[in-house]
Amino acid sequence: MNVTILGNNSALPAFGRHPTAQALSLTGETILLDCGEGTQVQMQHYGIKWGKINHIFISHMHGDHYFGLFGLVNSMSLLGRTEPLHLYAPPALKGIIDQITIAADSHLAYEFYFHPLLEGTNILVDNDRFRVTAFGVEHRITCHGFLIEQKTKGRKLLPERCAEFHIPVDFYDKLKMGQDYMHADGTIIKNELLTADGLSPTRYAYCADTRFTESFMDVIRGADTIYHECTYLQEDEVRATLRFHSTTAQAARIAVIAGAKQLLLGHFSSRYKELDAFQAEAAAIFPNVHVTVEGTTYEI
Amino acid sequence: MNVTILGNNSALPAFGRHPTAQALSLTGETILLDCGEGTQVQMQHYGIKWGKINHIFISHMHGDHYFGLFGLVNSMSLLGRTEPLHLYAPPALKGIIDQITIAADSHLAYEFYFHPLLEGTNILVDNDRFRVTAFGVEHRITCHGFLIEQKTKGRKLLPERCAEFHIPVDFYDKLKMGQDYMHADGTIIKNELLTADGLSPTRYAYCADTRFTESFMDVIRGADTIYHECTYLQEDEVRATLRFHSTTAQAARIAVIAGAKQLLLGHFSSRYKELDAFQAEAAAIFPNVHVTVEGTTYEI
Repeated sequence: MNVTILGNNSALPAFGRHPTAQALSLTGETILLDCGEGTQVQMQHYGIKWGKINHIFISHMHGDHYFGLFGLVNSMSLLGRTEPLHLYAPPALKGIIDQITIAADSHLAYEFYFHPLLEGTNILVDNDRFRVTAFGVEHRITCHGFLIEQKTKGRKLLPERCAEFHIPVDFYDKLKMGQDYMHADGTIIKNELLTADGLSPTRYAYCADTRFTESFMDVIRGADTIYHECTYLQEDEVRATLRFHSTTAQAARIAVIAGAKQLLLGHFSSRYKELDAFQAEAAAIFPNVHVTVEGTTYEI
Repeated sequence: MNVTILGNNSALPAFGRHPTAQALSLTGETILLDCGEGTQVQMQHYGIKWGKINHIFISHMHGDHYFGLFGLVNSMSLLGRTEPLHLYAPPALKGIIDQITIAADSHLAYEFYFHPLLEGTNILVDNDRFRVTAFGVEHRITCHGFLIEQKTKGRKLLPERCAEFHIPVDFYDKLKMGQDYMHADGTIIKNELLTADGLSPTRYAYCADTRFTESFMDVIRGADTIYHECTYLQEDEVRATLRFHSTTAQAARIAVIAGAKQLLLGHFSSRYKELDAFQAEAAAIFPNVHVTVEGTTYEI
């Protein structure tokens, strides 16, 4: 699993930096996290294929997180998309999309499913490849973060043990899913004799616009990589709190408390042209931190 | 008066070309004509100052002509704008802007005036510097073109005549406005003895998405420069007509019939990577034609 940063600035595009959007690549498909203005052009720029996107998640209704959605959804239709597209977003976005569609006297060439985000923690997608869980963060308006878990292929087979206990090969897939095996004579071979723990799922926590809070720690604890918004340097902590945003030190503390392996920072205020200080301040608290760069892909 | 092209492609951004937007500069201010996605970034790129924009005109409700408006309007507020802003657009845009504003729980820091476009030909702005007239074109949904006329400073004084007829200097401004002068004894000196015709107003006709029609010829006749959409090459005329768009030859014919001095082409389909054929086909009918290039400023 890896994530390509398409926009890492806050509300105002500045210094060549764009509003928020991230493309998360896993098992052959791409999940889009937020979709600021210009996302479709950034995708072209950095080789993100719209055809691989089946799920889009919008954190909240501030424009720098969704003004690029209308153009992208429309372009997918013009480009001949036929696969269904699923959008998970605040309920208010539905009415806006409907009005835009009616005003254009148009319709999309593919099935478009709108899934309104409810308050609190909810599982939005749970298929055999990944699970996405929304969780509430603390912003001026209702805002969600998203935890994306790439599932592994289940338990790890122990081939010698399977041979020893005469397990037929066509039962191996069920062993991976944790089932016991029963011989014709009724003897049951417990799964733990035949398999070992598989790889843990890989987990990415996307903590969109929020001020410092541990309220969602139960959801993101143990995530491999955390993206946390980091609008301000530490000297602007008062401003950050007033505006429901976070600082370098606060984002780094979240990564420490959550026990993450890696921290990505973004959503930088347009008051900062240079971002070196972000790296230094956060690394003093959590060393494995990256001040994200647009167009860069980070392994999770 | 001059116009800077910020976007010259049709619905899909492609080959580095963006959706429609143009910045018309006249007498110290800038008029924005359409506002496709990414316009605010294109403005930064090409040095168009948002502070000089007081009037924005949106031709119709296809997204490639207005999806950049929300971000621009919002950014102006974040950047501290206090001057009023006037938007002239199809009535449906008002409801969309209202929903976006409510969902963000925000308000603009400046006065924002929405002026709904009515069907047909209407004067939208008429001040001492310029006049803007909307006119209907033929598109799949209601769409307007705009005629912008930069006014001149009135009639041209003939100083020797004024001296000869003993006209007081403080009456000169009224002479420029066409008034006669009356001496104390009741003698009237006709204005045409004291002044000559002034410069003609400079006129720019912006013919947004439309198929070939002469229906608005009465409005744009004699315009100095015509911008006409030109989505297709001549070989695609059937497609153009079906989709309510125009070809090279059709755009050039409009310029000939209107008696324009210069023709600008834009709104190119993303099926064309190279645009040389547009120049050749149009120039065969109307020689002073420019296949517009983004970031280029054309004198009108």
